[in-house]
Amino acid sequence: MNMPAASAGSLLANLPNGSLADELFHILAEKGDARIERIVSTGQATPEGDWYDQETDEFVLLVSGAAALQIEGEAEERELGPGDWVMLPAHCRHRVAWTQSEPPTVWLAVHF
Amino acid sequence: MNMPAASAGSLLANLPNGSLADELFHILAEKGDARIERIVSTGQATPEGDWYDQETDEFVLLVSGAAALQIEGEAEERELGPGDWVMLPAHCRHRVAWTQSEPPTVWLAVHF
Repeated sequence: MNMPAASAGSLLANLPNGSLADELFHILAEKGDARIERIVSTGQATPEGDWYDQETDEFVLLVSGAAALQIEGEAEERELGPGDWVMLPAHCRHRVAWTQSEPPTVWLAVHF
Repeated sequence: MNMPAASAGSLLANLPNGSLADELFHILAEKGDARIERIVSTGQATPEGDWYDQETDEFVLLVSGAAALQIEGEAEERELGPGDWVMLPAHCRHRVAWTQSEPPTVWLAVHF
């Protein structure tokens, strides 16, 4: 038998204690145009006036912690708690308004 | 301005009370060969001796609840709790050994 092996892990393992200078990115799976990654935020935010404007769609799930996304043209920030997801189509300009630092904020992002 | 709109929701919303006859599937996003869906299990398992043998890769995250996966050729089931993920390559034969029914077990699956 020569079966492809399953890899595995926990999104909640190896979290930092306290704030880090930068967000942590771990690619969990990747194939073709698709990429699945864990992001750990400890208070980081997108600088005021900056926007992400991406070439691909991004599905983002807040796994633990708390954060807010700002989407260009929307009056209110979208506050996110565990289990909340947002589907950001390509070129949907957005920024991370804030993230909880302790305990850290864990995201699962699917770029596809 | 004509920006693509962001859709959003919570994986933990609208969960059933008690056990259902079947698992619930909700497609959250879909593009090309990629599909992101929420699965809610309330005690379901793959019948003994049956195996999933899929044509595409599947990344699965246990969001809440508890479950166990059995992978063909492995001596032990893999018990999963919140935050645990498994990357199942195409044709990695597997079955769901059990799922917690109350509170329900919530999965995020990415087929790609």
